[in-house]
Amino acid sequence: MNTLGIDLGGTYARAGVVDAEGRILAAARTALDERMPAAVVSAIQRAAAAALELAGGEDAARVTACGIGVAGQLRAGGVVSVAPNLGWRDVPFGQMLAAGLRRTVRVVNDLAAAAWGEFSAGAGRGVDDIFVVFVGSGVGSSVIGGGRQLQGATGVAGEFGHIKVVPGGRLCGCGERGCLEAYAGGHNLNRQMREAMERLGPATRMHALCGGDPEKLTSPLLEEAARLGDPAAREIYDGAAMHLGIAIANQVTVLNPARLILGGGVLTHCPGLRRRVEELVQAYANANARAAVQVKTAALGDDSGLIGAALLAGSAG
Amino acid sequence: MNTLGIDLGGTYARAGVVDAEGRILAAARTALDERMPAAVVSAIQRAAAAALELAGGEDAARVTACGIGVAGQLRAGGVVSVAPNLGWRDVPFGQMLAAGLRRTVRVVNDLAAAAWGEFSAGAGRGVDDIFVVFVGSGVGSSVIGGGRQLQGATGVAGEFGHIKVVPGGRLCGCGERGCLEAYAGGHNLNRQMREAMERLGPATRMHALCGGDPEKLTSPLLEEAARLGDPAAREIYDGAAMHLGIAIANQVTVLNPARLILGGGVLTHCPGLRRRVEELVQAYANANARAAVQVKTAALGDDSGLIGAALLAGSAG
Repeated sequence: MNTLGIDLGGTYARAGVVDAEGRILAAARTALDERMPAAVVSAIQRAAAAALELAGGEDAARVTACGIGVAGQLRAGGVVSVAPNLGWRDVPFGQMLAAGLRRTVRVVNDLAAAAWGEFSAGAGRGVDDIFVVFVGSGVGSSVIGGGRQLQGATGVAGEFGHIKVVPGGRLCGCGERGCLEAYAGGHNLNRQMREAMERLGPATRMHALCGGDPEKLTSPLLEEAARLGDPAAREIYDGAAMHLGIAIANQVTVLNPARLILGGGVLTHCPGLRRRVEELVQAYANANARAAVQVKTAALGDDSGLIGAALLAGSAG
Repeated sequence: MNTLGIDLGGTYARAGVVDAEGRILAAARTALDERMPAAVVSAIQRAAAAALELAGGEDAARVTACGIGVAGQLRAGGVVSVAPNLGWRDVPFGQMLAAGLRRTVRVVNDLAAAAWGEFSAGAGRGVDDIFVVFVGSGVGSSVIGGGRQLQGATGVAGEFGHIKVVPGGRLCGCGERGCLEAYAGGHNLNRQMREAMERLGPATRMHALCGGDPEKLTSPLLEEAARLGDPAAREIYDGAAMHLGIAIANQVTVLNPARLILGGGVLTHCPGLRRRVEELVQAYANANARAAVQVKTAALGDDSGLIGAALLAGSAG
């Protein structure tokens, strides 16, 4: 059975027709000019219509269900409680979208959708127990155990970015202190680099590498400056690697996954950081769990969320 | 349907006839004179016969399945890979016991059995998502999500005592360094107290409290010495509380359980430590997860393992 998957970012909506094996048969994308819920629904309608048209008559006709991944917190019935990058609060998005698309709609967390995509059609294929970690601007995770995604009592399981690694430490975007994301998320890595540059000016190599323009600071630039031995860069970089590596190792110990799947922009574009994380998992995960786990790179890239949302819409689970 | 549950300790075996609601209808216990597998099987046979006899004809006749919790690592088919306190390696215990009892036998990890007992008939009744932490001589945990126990890829999920809280830190009984258990498990708390007494002699209040006899050091004594303001005791005690509290808070963040269930001798007999752990969970778990979790004390005491093993034997899962 084919289903429709939607990937809703802060600046665009992408729709795709996906088959039961998780192949994208056709996809289309449109920019979000406005972020009001009604405007987003019609942008999605346009993208979905284009994708369905592209998939062609027979394939399109068989699409009755739609899944959508949203970066935010959800409640039952497809209500979006909070979606910071859309500026939404308590939006009955599932209902609105179902009316707009005239299809059943399942609203899921974007990261849960991406993890389900990797599990079903990507780097997690063939095993039942995986731990997925995405390090992009934020840090998120999802646990799949015995073939089922861990939802938690109120649907917020997997908030790995907000475990505390330095009690009382750096302020995180979530308003709490000392979260893993405050040390290892891309957004906070950039903030730490900016702070170091303001403090040190041209005395840090980061200054020369970005031409003195804080807008050009990126996590690969941090990795490069650390590789060159810059002390300020090393401190930020080593802290990120250590906190991330130990935290992942500890989850491997508790969860005993068959595969640890690593994805997201920071881990993808910083091969040195990715290698350090693997070394730390080998060094610090419990021997039994370590022996059982295989480390893999997320295989579906930007498509994981769309594919996962589509497959979740088609599943009973 | 009634089932037989066995709780196998290092020094005794206890058998009980348990009904589908997790009530123990009759139980019997026998000391283990020998720890050779064949001797243990016959000790269990005697205890089981006594419990069945006690339960009476009709109830006994309906018992066709038996579950047993073993402190150790297991492989498929009821093989005990390693059971340190019995000195076993690669014992086909499930087969031996099934032959001895002429019943189907399910061998499970003792802590998984105890957690399942709490879930089904104790402090976890009525919810689907719990995180159970036992702090006794060691530190162990079990995750139940969506009503199913997380086993992991090779059956060793839940090794919470061996997450690393101080990379490169104190040597743990498992041979690795810096494990949570090396800081917060009862056995290691005693070891830390002994070390402090050897170093400080009567200069620590722990010396007076145990009458100078290291054999009399216990975790409640540590709590008392810390309460009295003894610096050496405080250091050990505060370290245990902090590492345990943050680690539990972080698992609450990742797992989003409806209930956190705390049990085991150390947490049961050190009310101050238990309170500190709760405070740390409130202070450091992510806001969403914290709002959803209720902290409960394990309700079945020493019966949880026997009840859980019996219920697991009767279930399809």
